Amino acid sequence: MQKIKVIAFDADDTLWINEPYYQDVERLFCELLKDYLPEDEVSIELLKTEKQNIEIYGYGAKGFMLSMIETALRISNNKVDANIILQTISIGKYLLNKPIELLANVEQTLIALKKDYKIILATKGDLLDQERKLKKSGLLHHFNHVEIMSNKNEEDYQKLIKRLEIQPEKFLMIGNSVKSDILPVISIGSKAIHIPFSVTWKHEILEKKHNEDFKTISNLSEIISLLKC
Amino acid sequence: MQKIKVIAFDADDTLWINEPYYQDVERLFCELLKDYLPEDEVSIELLKTEKQNIEIYGYGAKGFMLSMIETALRISNNKVDANIILQTISIGKYLLNKPIELLANVEQTLIALKKDYKIILATKGDLLDQERKLKKSGLLHHFNHVEIMSNKNEEDYQKLIKRLEIQPEKFLMIGNSVKSDILPVISIGSKAIHIPFSVTWKHEILEKKHNEDFKTISNLSEIISLLKC
Repeated sequence: MQKIKVIAFDADDTLWINEPYYQDVERLFCELLKDYLPEDEVSIELLKTEKQNIEIYGYGAKGFMLSMIETALRISNNKVDANIILQTISIGKYLLNKPIELLANVEQTLIALKKDYKIILATKGDLLDQERKLKKSGLLHHFNHVEIMSNKNEEDYQKLIKRLEIQPEKFLMIGNSVKSDILPVISIGSKAIHIPFSVTWKHEILEKKHNEDFKTISNLSEIISLLKC
Repeated sequence: MQKIKVIAFDADDTLWINEPYYQDVERLFCELLKDYLPEDEVSIELLKTEKQNIEIYGYGAKGFMLSMIETALRISNNKVDANIILQTISIGKYLLNKPIELLANVEQTLIALKKDYKIILATKGDLLDQERKLKKSGLLHHFNHVEIMSNKNEEDYQKLIKRLEIQPEKFLMIGNSVKSDILPVISIGSKAIHIPFSVTWKHEILEKKHNEDFKTISNLSEIISLLKC
């Protein structure tokens, strides 16, 4: 850990609450469609649509909105009441306008670390939406660099490290998703610390087991002592 | 011009065709709704929706799709046939999957310039969509840096120049939009060359007159001789 020069933080569900808001919106959506299909089945259909569309839409709220609308059409055999589409757009906009609620100890950890490290934000999602959330969070001025990525696989991290002009072993990633924030980072020779969040987004749940060769913390402030090891 | 070290290119309608595809999709959409409203009025309503939503959705195809759906709902008094929503999603996906058609002399100009300059791409739009278009264009390997921006105002260009670690007078922007590619760039002390495209996106049409204190070219290859002035 003593080689580390750059610390990158994931944003959603690492620095601030995100997934519970998406789950709230999904619940509202399933309820809207309960006359066509039981709510838990609507949820399964929505996940199916999202998986089909992830390659074309990418991650983020707008793709989620479009997938909800497409799901509503499919499960109603294209007979869905237009008012339900209107309400789907409305709950999607509510999601985009949600205020930001920071997780515990975020700001003091960033302040403590920025004295000794280059601090960056590395998140995926809609460009404008993530920039807006960062502004609303009040954390923007703590970051030396912000990278909004269309995906977080090994190749994407390699590009990021090249852009930062550092060796992989000097890069530490901190995030809540083992799939996106931890495994690809370790596999390119960088370090990663996992900070689990209470709920995991369905797309981030790993199907196969992985080697637990990374550190896990339960509170962001633990990073400070870990970095001294 | 002899101070220039970095040349940034806009992408849509500067390197490849874009706006005509959006206009084709808009025509199809207006036709879908002609039973509710004359086609030219649908177009006016769509522009109104897009303007209302630009702050929340930003630029790009997904926001455009959501605005089309919202327009269909409004002009039908929330009575639109669900099949029209389905077709709207379908023409939006067609837009996202369109192949890339390069404009004249793009590749040879980039090849000629990359020997003496750092070449970057500076475009706004959906992150994933713009990355995909760049990959499909076959031009990715010519660029030293790719910047996908949520907006292109003075502040955004200042951030870009800071990130590139150069002085403003060493930066040259080339693009088809006076509003996004030329005026903000000149106003921060950088250089800009305008290369008009046959059609201009409605959101990029300037309402007030501006001083014509920048160069205009009609073919991308003219840059090479302009840079020697």
